[in-house]
Parts: sequence; C-alpha cells; structure tokens
Amino acid sequence: MAVKLYDFHSSSTAFRVRIALNIKGVEIEQVPLEIGDMEKPDFRELNPQANVPVLIDGGVELIQSMAIIEYLEETRPEPPLLPKNLDERARVRALSLWIACEIQPLNTVRTLRYLKERFEVSEMDLGNWQLHWCAVGFDALEQQLAQSSYTGKFCHGELPTMADCFLVPQIYNSQRPLVGADLTKWPTLARIYETCMALPEFERALPQNQPGFGDAPMSSPL
Amino acid sequence: MAVKLYDFHSSSTAFRVRIALNIKGVEIEQVPLEIGDMEKPDFRELNPQANVPVLIDGGVELIQSMAIIEYLEETRPEPPLLPKNLDERARVRALSLWIACEIQPLNTVRTLRYLKERFEVSEMDLGNWQLHWCAVGFDALEQQLAQSSYTGKFCHGELPTMADCFLVPQIYNSQRPLVGADLTKWPTLARIYETCMALPEFERALPQNQPGFGDAPMSSPL
Repeated sequence: MAVKLYDFHSSSTAFRVRIALNIKGVEIEQVPLEIGDMEKPDFRELNPQANVPVLIDGGVELIQSMAIIEYLEETRPEPPLLPKNLDERARVRALSLWIACEIQPLNTVRTLRYLKERFEVSEMDLGNWQLHWCAVGFDALEQQLAQSSYTGKFCHGELPTMADCFLVPQIYNSQRPLVGADLTKWPTLARIYETCMALPEFERALPQNQPGFGDAPMSSPL
Repeated sequence: MAVKLYDFHSSSTAFRVRIALNIKGVEIEQVPLEIGDMEKPDFRELNPQANVPVLIDGGVELIQSMAIIEYLEETRPEPPLLPKNLDERARVRALSLWIACEIQPLNTVRTLRYLKERFEVSEMDLGNWQLHWCAVGFDALEQQLAQSSYTGKFCHGELPTMADCFLVPQIYNSQRPLVGADLTKWPTLARIYETCMALPEFERALPQNQPGFGDAPMSSPL
C-alpha cells in the first residue's frame, strides 16, 4: 500500500525520507508543497511543527524524519536500514543524529531568516555561517568514518543504512551557492556520497527530480 | 554493572542520559568534565564530535544522547522508555527529536559563541535569540501535547518516556538568566515538568546535583 508523503523538493529532511522509502521499495503518493505552505493554518493543523516531511501510513500520521525512518524500519524491516548488533545500531544512529542535531538545524531557512532579519547578517556572512557548521560537522564525521573498521562502501558496511539517508542530503546542501563546501577536504564523505548517488534509490530522491523544483522563487527560499 | 559516563553538569544532552540511566536503575560511574575539556585532543580522540555525553558500557563506546537512550532501551528494556505500539513509539521519538533537532542545537555554547564573536551579537540579543527558539519549539510542543489523547501525566501516558528525558532539560535551560522563558504560556509543558521534577530519577539528574556545578566560571560558559 502506498504511503502519502507531504513533501517539499528542497527540504533535506524530506529528502532523507524519500531515500529511505525508495530503499524499502515503498510506493509514494506525493503531496508536493511550496515553502510558504508549511506556515499555513491547515498545514499547522496537521503538523504543529510546521515542517516536512509528514508521512501518512494508513491511519497513522508521522512527523520528524528520524522517527519516520525508525517507524519504517519497524514496520518494513527489509531491506534493513539499521544493523542487527546493538552497538552497531548505536553507531548508525549516532552518525545520523550528528547530522540531524548538529549540522542541519543551524542551516534551516528559518534560522537564516532570523539572522538576516534580526541581526542584519549579509548574504556573504550567511554563506560563511552555513559553511562553518558544515565544516565543523564534516570534520568530525570524516574522522569518525575514516578511523572505524565498520565503515565500508557506505557509512556502515557494504549496504546503505539510515546514516547514508542523512549524509547524502547534507552533502547535497553543502554544494548550494554561497555555501560551496570543497568536498576534497573530506575524502571519505565524498567517496560515500558518490557511491550513494550511483544508486537509483538515491538519485530518484534528489530535489531536482521532485515536482516544482526550479520554479521561481524556489531557488532562493530567503 | 556500572556504566561510565563522561559528563558535564550543565550539558542538557548529558542531563537527558542521566535521567534515562536513573529510570533504568543503571549505576553510573561519572567522569565529570569541565567545558574546556571537550575540546582537548585526548577527548577528541575518544569522541571526534567533541561533546558529551559519552557512555562506556563494557567494551562499547556510545555517543549522541538519543542513540545512547535507544541503546539503553535495547539492552535494558525495563522499565521501558518507549511504548510497545509502533505508532506510539513514533510519537515519542518525534517529540524527542523536535527538542533535539529544533530547539537545543540553536542554543548550544558554540552557536552562541559564534554569534557573539563573528556577528557581534549583544548579550541581550543572545538572550532574545535563545528565548525565540524556545518559544517556537514550546508553542508547537504545547499544541501537540495538549491536543493528543496519548498525553497523560507525562508526555506519553502515565509513566516517563524518552520524551520526558528530552523535555525536562530543555525546560530547565529555558529558565537560565537572559532567557527566562515564562512557563505559564505553556501550561501542559509546565505541568509535565513539575510532575517529572517530583521524581527522584529526574531530581538526581539536575545540573546542580552534579560534581563541579557552581564552580567559577561555569555559570557563564561564554
């Protein structure tokens, strides 16, 4: 049975869930939103957090990308996005959370908007801010991935896991104009990114392959 | 067997794990750090993310508070911090993640330090920034909790869950000087906070009940 996904092409959190659904082979009935839609009262009724993704699976409404991916793992265990061993599960979750809690939140549209409107931060300094938090996050990730024998073709072993669902959208975002992170600084991340992007499950989830991408004024959410 | 917890009294992410360990009845061998310690090379060797909590359980090293709590739930299921039903598990995780990904990251010491040093944001405006993200987060949480029949004495039902482990440290932090959130605006959150704080598992986890709290210059991490 298809799930319904309230989606926004350029949301990195929705991007994570699109990848996970593709890997699990779940059919997606997409509800494409534009950026202003998430602030509207009827959407806030559905999700007081006013963000995507929102996933509807039968009668169950789900929010927050990581909670959704954990739920998918519990309801559709194959192919797995978490390893079986408890210490390895913790590793995959920790890699994912590092991205979810330490990189992504500092670079959301609403954060950038606050900086611009209240602190009068220039466009160039907004780019530097985003690049800074990417670099702090990627430096730690690179070290963790490069030094662990668990790291394989992917973040954890030879098949994609939850950690890859989180890593790819964050690297993709780091390539936006004004951020432009130089991936040669993080060779392990760059290698895993390339490996993932060669898979159709990741490629189909890309922002440019979603409805509405490229329509003005979406390229500049600020 | 006791676990070893690399801890910092005023870290809200370590506070979450202290609560979870207390609820699970796990003995804690605490390694108290001061704020500068996390940047030191030997600590970065242990955790490239340069933050607490770090939990050592026998031979297993764990980082990231939510990954640690999920691991505790998998290794020590009783008393549970997640419900049994899959949709309810997703709800508890989503409440936790809202705090972990949307409120806490904007108010970390390193974020505030960047704002102060690079954008020359004043102390008062730093307070306003913190209060703003608390309010955005608490408004959504209040609506979610107040409108759901799953909400009980605690965030989910009649016993504490992972969501309460995340909520209490965030509310505690919102009461710091220069932030000073007025909890009467969020009556459900305030009620749950009070209920939690009456339990010894929460009370023992408070920053002021940890070693080193109150020693200069800890009260002002900036």
